[in-house]
Amino acid sequence: MGNLVNVALDGMGGDNAPGEIVKGAVDALNANEGVKVFLTGNKDALEAELKKYEYPSERIEIVPTTEIIEMGEAPVMAIRKKRDSSLVVALNLVKDGKCDAFVSAGSTGAVLAGGQLLVGRIKGVERPPLAPLIPNADGVSLLVDCGANVDARPTQLVQFAKMGSAYMKYAMGIENPKVALLNIGTEEEKGNALVKDTYPMLSSTTDINFIGSIEAREIPAGGADVIVCDAFAGNIALKMYEGVAKVLLSKLKEAMMLNLKTKIGALLIKDTLKATLKDFDATQYGGAPLLGLKGLVVKTHGSAKAGEVRNSIIQCITFKEQDVNGKIRQYLDL
Amino acid sequence: MGNLVNVALDGMGGDNAPGEIVKGAVDALNANEGVKVFLTGNKDALEAELKKYEYPSERIEIVPTTEIIEMGEAPVMAIRKKRDSSLVVALNLVKDGKCDAFVSAGSTGAVLAGGQLLVGRIKGVERPPLAPLIPNADGVSLLVDCGANVDARPTQLVQFAKMGSAYMKYAMGIENPKVALLNIGTEEEKGNALVKDTYPMLSSTTDINFIGSIEAREIPAGGADVIVCDAFAGNIALKMYEGVAKVLLSKLKEAMMLNLKTKIGALLIKDTLKATLKDFDATQYGGAPLLGLKGLVVKTHGSAKAGEVRNSIIQCITFKEQDVNGKIRQYLDL
Repeated sequence: MGNLVNVALDGMGGDNAPGEIVKGAVDALNANEGVKVFLTGNKDALEAELKKYEYPSERIEIVPTTEIIEMGEAPVMAIRKKRDSSLVVALNLVKDGKCDAFVSAGSTGAVLAGGQLLVGRIKGVERPPLAPLIPNADGVSLLVDCGANVDARPTQLVQFAKMGSAYMKYAMGIENPKVALLNIGTEEEKGNALVKDTYPMLSSTTDINFIGSIEAREIPAGGADVIVCDAFAGNIALKMYEGVAKVLLSKLKEAMMLNLKTKIGALLIKDTLKATLKDFDATQYGGAPLLGLKGLVVKTHGSAKAGEVRNSIIQCITFKEQDVNGKIRQYLDL
Repeated sequence: MGNLVNVALDGMGGDNAPGEIVKGAVDALNANEGVKVFLTGNKDALEAELKKYEYPSERIEIVPTTEIIEMGEAPVMAIRKKRDSSLVVALNLVKDGKCDAFVSAGSTGAVLAGGQLLVGRIKGVERPPLAPLIPNADGVSLLVDCGANVDARPTQLVQFAKMGSAYMKYAMGIENPKVALLNIGTEEEKGNALVKDTYPMLSSTTDINFIGSIEAREIPAGGADVIVCDAFAGNIALKMYEGVAKVLLSKLKEAMMLNLKTKIGALLIKDTLKATLKDFDATQYGGAPLLGLKGLVVKTHGSAKAGEVRNSIIQCITFKEQDVNGKIRQYLDL
């Protein structure tokens, strides 16, 4: 227990805070002895939630805060003004070196802005990308960037490819991860100006396993481990992925609940179906890391429940144990 | 029968040509008395396919051609060199006024290039967008552009919005179609440079029903009737839509075929499930129109089977009967 991984957890961020956030913290502590959680937020509210559970109390510490950053607030302004918000105080725990990692289900904009302003970039990193893991038919891919860099430059995309490779290799254990450039065709001459400028640069980057362009259609089939794109394209790919899955599954449910016959049918395939669809549950991998910062910053879905919070906290352990940030520095020659 | 809609059909384009193309033509002729098909391609091959069916022979005409444009060929070069290809000859039938519309399952690039070079733009249209219909939880949306305009300008996107509105109103019968701008958030300040420049222009366009930005997540839920974007973003949205649906449905099938128990379950829900998923079959609406040309150019999937070809031909009838091109001119003030 000498070398605990210290995680700063934003106790008030997200649609289900603080209830599901606290439950996720407790579940993580009970699942893994190597982690300590610093929980920021309203003291009374957090204590009331904690009372519901059994947990190793020496590995959780409430850090009382008085403010909350809401979803609609202008990110940079919110970070600067709400110095005593659960989000800012948690980020400052990483900045001050008291914590190794930060996890929040709060406003994406505030997490991105706060991560850069407070935790700070690794020197030499142009832009820190938000890199969610998305499940595919065979496993999982990293979609980098889905964050704030909507008008990216080719040199930034090359850094995304390197940071993504480091993450997939050391945090996810994938040997020689396949890197692809998100594009609208697989021929080299296809694409918009950014993609056309980036392609030859990725081709001549020797320390990554660049396999060329990938069409969005091939992502769910598992065509690559690291998918490089600007945040506008990445956000569209990610949200369409989530949107289609949601609508199809709700239609499927509807069909199965239509009448007695279909309900019996549903009963017979339920367990198998659940197991299959579990593979497609992005929350099993935890949240999306913001790569290239001095500490680990993880953003979970705003709608995150305890399971995703728990997995995000556990994700921080691998990140520290494998020294992913050290590896990112190596990949970037920094 | 006086006023037949004449459709030029590329008999050799696509993965399943000529078999499924010819079958689609026959099915369309048998389903609708108001259409005549001019079928371009290898005479012997087309006749051999036609022999398999009963059909009104006075409403189909083979136009013999000797060349085929392959999928990998450079589009503009192929259009210029292969003057006697099934694709070029069919497009020229529209150019020369012998046909009202063109349908092909061939190379997207060649259809886009050929449509512009041979059929030609309506004067005043900056760029003709490719606009596939994608099913959603409530009905169907038009995703405009998914074509070749990967680095688009704001004025082009405004034209897409107008042409898309005309198409959804008159070809699809949707009153006052809701137009949204594909974006990574719904706040006005979100987006890349193109989206930020386009938003205020769409806001001040009075003859469309602009409802603001839409996230990709809301598209499958049916958030808008016309979704405006540059072709790079549109292509990613479209292909991700198709890719996720394909993988999820194949996983579902796998789960249902696992053992005797699940097979019985599958049998009980099969019919209901099929009916539900039919709503999500894009091919029921026919192919994607290339809007803003002097005639109608429709691109089906490369993998199109007879059903999609049939529906694409029938789609041409509404387009002509409703004078969609006249309406597009009105919307564009041309």
